[in-house]
Amino acid sequence: MSERVVLAYSGGLDTSCILKWLINKGFEVICYMGNIGQEEDFEQARKKALNIGASKVVIDDIQEDFVANYVWPAISYGLIYENRYLLGTSLARPCISVGLINCVKNNNASYVAHGATGKGNDQVRFELSCYTLLPDVKIIAPWRDEEFIAKFEGRQDLLKYAKENNIPVSVSPKAPWSMDANLMHISYESGILEKPDNEPPEDLFLMTQSPQFAPSQATRIEILFEKGKPSLIKLNDGRSFTLPVDILTVLNDIGGKNGVGRIDIVENRFLGLKSRGVYETPGATILHVAHTDLETFCLDKEVYRIKQSLRDRLSDYVYNGFWFSPEGIYTRRCLDFAAEQVEGTVKLEIFKGSVTVLGRSSNTSTYNEDLVSMDRHSTFSPQDATGFINIQALRLKEYHKSALKYI
Amino acid sequence: MSERVVLAYSGGLDTSCILKWLINKGFEVICYMGNIGQEEDFEQARKKALNIGASKVVIDDIQEDFVANYVWPAISYGLIYENRYLLGTSLARPCISVGLINCVKNNNASYVAHGATGKGNDQVRFELSCYTLLPDVKIIAPWRDEEFIAKFEGRQDLLKYAKENNIPVSVSPKAPWSMDANLMHISYESGILEKPDNEPPEDLFLMTQSPQFAPSQATRIEILFEKGKPSLIKLNDGRSFTLPVDILTVLNDIGGKNGVGRIDIVENRFLGLKSRGVYETPGATILHVAHTDLETFCLDKEVYRIKQSLRDRLSDYVYNGFWFSPEGIYTRRCLDFAAEQVEGTVKLEIFKGSVTVLGRSSNTSTYNEDLVSMDRHSTFSPQDATGFINIQALRLKEYHKSALKYI
Amino acid sequence: MSERVVLAYSGGLDTSCILKWLINKGFEVICYMGNIGQEEDFEQARKKALNIGASKVVIDDIQEDFVANYVWPAISYGLIYENRYLLGTSLARPCISVGLINCVKNNNASYVAHGATGKGNDQVRFELSCYTLLPDVKIIAPWRDEEFIAKFEGRQDLLKYAKENNIPVSVSPKAPWSMDANLMHISYESGILEKPDNEPPEDLFLMTQSPQFAPSQATRIEILFEKGKPSLIKLNDGRSFTLPVDILTVLNDIGGKNGVGRIDIVENRFLGLKSRGVYETPGATILHVAHTDLETFCLDKEVYRIKQSLRDRLSDYVYNGFWFSPEGIYTRRCLDFAAEQVEGTVKLEIFKGSVTVLGRSSNTSTYNEDLVSMDRHSTFSPQDATGFINIQALRLKEYHKSALKYI
Amino acid sequence: MSERVVLAYSGGLDTSCILKWLINKGFEVICYMGNIGQEEDFEQARKKALNIGASKVVIDDIQEDFVANYVWPAISYGLIYENRYLLGTSLARPCISVGLINCVKNNNASYVAHGATGKGNDQVRFELSCYTLLPDVKIIAPWRDEEFIAKFEGRQDLLKYAKENNIPVSVSPKAPWSMDANLMHISYESGILEKPDNEPPEDLFLMTQSPQFAPSQATRIEILFEKGKPSLIKLNDGRSFTLPVDILTVLNDIGGKNGVGRIDIVENRFLGLKSRGVYETPGATILHVAHTDLETFCLDKEVYRIKQSLRDRLSDYVYNGFWFSPEGIYTRRCLDFAAEQVEGTVKLEIFKGSVTVLGRSSNTSTYNEDLVSMDRHSTFSPQDATGFINIQALRLKEYHKSALKYI
Repeated sequence: MSERVVLAYSGGLDTSCILKWLINKGFEVICYMGNIGQEEDFEQARKKALNIGASKVVIDDIQEDFVANYVWPAISYGLIYENRYLLGTSLARPCISVGLINCVKNNNASYVAHGATGKGNDQVRFELSCYTLLPDVKIIAPWRDEEFIAKFEGRQDLLKYAKENNIPVSVSPKAPWSMDANLMHISYESGILEKPDNEPPEDLFLMTQSPQFAPSQATRIEILFEKGKPSLIKLNDGRSFTLPVDILTVLNDIGGKNGVGRIDIVENRFLGLKSRGVYETPGATILHVAHTDLETFCLDKEVYRIKQSLRDRLSDYVYNGFWFSPEGIYTRRCLDFAAEQVEGTVKLEIFKGSVTVLGRSSNTSTYNEDLVSMDRHSTFSPQDATGFINIQALRLKEYHKSALKYI
Repeated sequence: MSERVVLAYSGGLDTSCILKWLINKGFEVICYMGNIGQEEDFEQARKKALNIGASKVVIDDIQEDFVANYVWPAISYGLIYENRYLLGTSLARPCISVGLINCVKNNNASYVAHGATGKGNDQVRFELSCYTLLPDVKIIAPWRDEEFIAKFEGRQDLLKYAKENNIPVSVSPKAPWSMDANLMHISYESGILEKPDNEPPEDLFLMTQSPQFAPSQATRIEILFEKGKPSLIKLNDGRSFTLPVDILTVLNDIGGKNGVGRIDIVENRFLGLKSRGVYETPGATILHVAHTDLETFCLDKEVYRIKQSLRDRLSDYVYNGFWFSPEGIYTRRCLDFAAEQVEGTVKLEIFKGSVTVLGRSSNTSTYNEDLVSMDRHSTFSPQDATGFINIQALRLKEYHKSALKYI
Repeated sequence: MSERVVLAYSGGLDTSCILKWLINKGFEVICYMGNIGQEEDFEQARKKALNIGASKVVIDDIQEDFVANYVWPAISYGLIYENRYLLGTSLARPCISVGLINCVKNNNASYVAHGATGKGNDQVRFELSCYTLLPDVKIIAPWRDEEFIAKFEGRQDLLKYAKENNIPVSVSPKAPWSMDANLMHISYESGILEKPDNEPPEDLFLMTQSPQFAPSQATRIEILFEKGKPSLIKLNDGRSFTLPVDILTVLNDIGGKNGVGRIDIVENRFLGLKSRGVYETPGATILHVAHTDLETFCLDKEVYRIKQSLRDRLSDYVYNGFWFSPEGIYTRRCLDFAAEQVEGTVKLEIFKGSVTVLGRSSNTSTYNEDLVSMDRHSTFSPQDATGFINIQALRLKEYHKSALKYI
Repeated sequence: MSERVVLAYSGGLDTSCILKWLINKGFEVICYMGNIGQEEDFEQARKKALNIGASKVVIDDIQEDFVANYVWPAISYGLIYENRYLLGTSLARPCISVGLINCVKNNNASYVAHGATGKGNDQVRFELSCYTLLPDVKIIAPWRDEEFIAKFEGRQDLLKYAKENNIPVSVSPKAPWSMDANLMHISYESGILEKPDNEPPEDLFLMTQSPQFAPSQATRIEILFEKGKPSLIKLNDGRSFTLPVDILTVLNDIGGKNGVGRIDIVENRFLGLKSRGVYETPGATILHVAHTDLETFCLDKEVYRIKQSLRDRLSDYVYNGFWFSPEGIYTRRCLDFAAEQVEGTVKLEIFKGSVTVLGRSSNTSTYNEDLVSMDRHSTFSPQDATGFINIQALRLKEYHKSALKYI
């Protein structure tokens, strides 16, 4: 009797070979495809999987869930890994894992299989998410399986296996890098990008055009946030959008045209390796800039600092695959609470790769024009500042007088 | 017998009136002008001060000190306030304070006077620096003096006082905002900027031109860092620079032409007020982007995280005026030590407001192309990742099984 | 027409003189006495205040509020200042401030007056609490009033003023230190304690007897916690208690007899001064030890670490008087959420100054005896540890091989 | 040709069986015994190992290194894991690893083998230390070896194997727990201690007697610290000690007699398991209390806070086995720098389980008796406190007035 596996299937060469290999090992395989906005002919992939021998193909449109429950919270928390990466892939993994585990449960399967490599982050993100959601699930990771990796030492072995097993192979030559795409971003790594001093070629980028070829006319928009999350965008042409997927799609379009959101970084993987990644994240970059602006406008100074330290922790948790961990859940709940006070509108200009804040307004800010004005005293007593400074100086003066000094 | 005051003199209306007012109160006043790269006719200011009655005018070229000992360390630490402000004014204050206190000591003075306002940060930065450097110094802050602020309620009172006292006044009308300039940046605040939703007018910016009018050809440069500090820049035309002031000046020129480094933010002042500031920091923004890239490339993953948390602390200390405090000195020493490992070259493209990293190289990075490559196993055993993930999952599974959950 | 002041009145010499002085300045003064468990003859104090000229005396029993809403949360958060001080006075101040401000509102007063000194923390705690609860309240702090401190340079001046104004003075000689008492603790400072090398005399302590004279038989108790707060104590004699004030009173009695909870420290005041304080906190020390034990037993490892960093922040906020600040409220809400999982029972032995944990049990702990046992493998695969360690070692090996090292 | 292994040998049943098993597998085995102060008949162990078939036995007295370079720094940093555990075992592991790796190098060996279990922390500490010190070393961990653990399922299998291989076995029955001892502490775990509600039996403790049976006369001592490390202890009988091993031995004796330093905790292991440990750490507990006191006396308030956060990080690093990691080295260097200012003397009383600070003195403290005194104003202006408080209140008042509140 065969055991049932749910395979995270992409339609590509790797997971097609894995599908066949699993079947050959006696498993019954259900292919799961989560639609999180990647460019993909899902119906063609379904046919391909069934032809190879999948017992079933589940195509799951999880775009709305992805944007509303992963991307929007990430924006509202200000998540950013090592100061630059907006976590587009990291956020997709727990969302897909929910789909995988639901598929496991609905189909009485025992296994999840995936095609993530053995040196990367995604294997960790998938598996930690799955183990948390269903502790008894068993996981098959062929790229860490001794037999599998002995058989498939390089791409040539996959192509040969595909040919032998009548698995159709794309005729277009493989790009000399790998990529991962969703509604939030596309990431590129490996291949020619492994040399960190190699400039990424212009034809690598699929979501954004080069700032060099972007319109010479700036685009202006307004973004409204409620509880830290985007709730409305207004374009200059009068159109406006409120649904999460619509907002992100439209901003991807605007950002993409204007060359916004490309980064090229060397990052620290969870496993301790340094790796080079190139990312394009047009829409979410616009949102991140706008939210960052509104947040300092709205949040209390000290709450902001606590929030930043929780953000830094959560950014690492999410990157490392701990979205559903106790610390992930706890931190998210604390940050949700801070986000309650981030409400208002940010005006932006987008132009040749740059996103510029032009102004902001909010009903939840403690900004007090009257109090801060240089032209009037308002309730402020300048003499109080003297006492404030003198007390701050007390400790410094004592230190200066002490026997031992750092200078 | 008169008491001797060293006045931080700018040549402008405010400090000229303060100079006269101090003289009228019976003080002997030495005017101190620190040249930190602001546009200023220092000789004309000297003449003006002597005409008003200053006993002496000291013009102190501290540009080299400012760049080498304040800006360069700040770049090497990655200092940034509330995620956006590169601290151009905050860094200048302790540098000028050293000049002021040296002037106090050299001239046997007892007082420092300054024209900083009573609601702002600069009064704190000047005074904490001065008190730390010379605990017994006395400070006169006219804008917190009851008598002075009763006399000078608005700009009209200053103009009237200037006229009565034969103090020459600039004929060009005052801009509807205030500004502070040095070799690193210009900051703008107050006046029409006090409405946080008002877009800053294009003619406000003096160091940068608008990205809209920037060259349509990108500029490429290379920056070499030693111990985290810029040590060499190479331009495409073959020129290269190594002296700190030269590097910053050239990068200001490149960044300024290409519209780099403008920000418009609402920030939290040390006194607890939220205030709106507009900044342009062309050269240091280029350096910040380059350094950020090299740092994640070179530093160990965990050292990087410790370093970031120290950076966040120091950014607040510097903003608040605690450069010379025990915690400021301690943090800087710890960060200097981390910076020892940040060495290498970053290639950049600068174009219409954007700074893009094109590649980086270093001899002190643990980046290992062979180890991270997707195409070969190197010393990496994929099976180890299985153990790693399973152990990480242990705690998560136990949590999932526990009686009480956060979800 | 007189203006109305609510005075935080203690019945002692200082606040009695302040009462008279305020009346002499034309104020109508309502005396407010918050009963937070200090030893005090409140009715005699009432009579005294009325005799001096108070228009009204409000005696407010806030013990229940103090224990339930300030001490219990502090225990559940694990609050501790600079690793040792359990914040007994700091917690009382916001609680009394609520009483003061209610009294202000109920009596249409405009002012709060208090007898806290100008160098201490309590002035800050009272005033920040009052200003937050009622931003328009005005505060009179005689010990910072130039006229008052010129008049009352030392204790002799107070005694003389008392005599002149028929204010009765205690016949017992003043101890050569000052103290502050409530249901949680007594603090001692100043006078002979100002020499940090002076051993506090044994007759200073009022809540605890010396461990030297404590019973030679240990006392055993059990404490049950719900949501991190003590909900039940069981004594060996069969008695048990559930009400907050009862629990704290009984534990003060047990701890006091057994010499528990004395500390002698030099601490950093908010104003930047270092000061020496001696504290005795018998009951809350027992609770702190028990809670610390249960918390590591119940909380997830990583949640515990986040919680500790929030605890450290909140300890400073509370010490500095920011209980009602945005950051205080935010941090408390985050910590309340973590405390939800801290439930169970701790067994303790109390003996001659020591509190020893004997065992603990909980339904919300992820402790898994089967999994951790050295005698069986359970679901644990030892081989996984190999992978875990090898992956952890990857980064360390790369570092060792890098060109530049810290060693 | 046989390959050479250095085995961390204890002389006990486990490592004796491992020794034989390695020999039977064809290895040449050198036994390494690090003397870090545990009670052990090293010469008898040497004979036993040679009889079993070790090619060589290296007995290495590393007590001085252990105390001077691991325990003393830990005291000066204030290291403590999860608020209670002083890291006695964690500190010994890197010290022993240096000995092991030196032995590997001196004897041209390729392997290190150890008898640490597969669920514990020590395997990680040994292996990460060894891999960092010598990245190419290979490690044999029999308790994670499939063949070995299949063969030795329980203690009976070890006893049987010992009998079959003429390995002498101790006649005294094994205690129903395991222990690890060194000059700093003894730890106890597993067996009957695995039930977290089981009280540890009195006969478990070997370094300390029960507070119940401790002398009824308190012991007074003085400890002098230089750069944060103990440099001199003075006893009441006139004796004094300066050498690290002497100081720790004498304090172990004093603490042991007086029942000091027992803790019973549930801790979070690096692998994510919660485990129960009982520890006795008499001398180092006395030092920890004294150092904690001196440190807040000497360090600047804000430096202290930075230092505490680095201490918390380093405590985790050390517990997890990262003493020699980049982050471990970096943090230690930062903390060394802070420790430079911790110099002075602490007077203590030790009595029936308690360590009480009686006073402290230092030449490097900024404590200023004149400034803090309640009896005189010194250079302090009470009016400054008014300004200080009013400025602190600004933000709180604005927050109170804002539209949205947390309360």
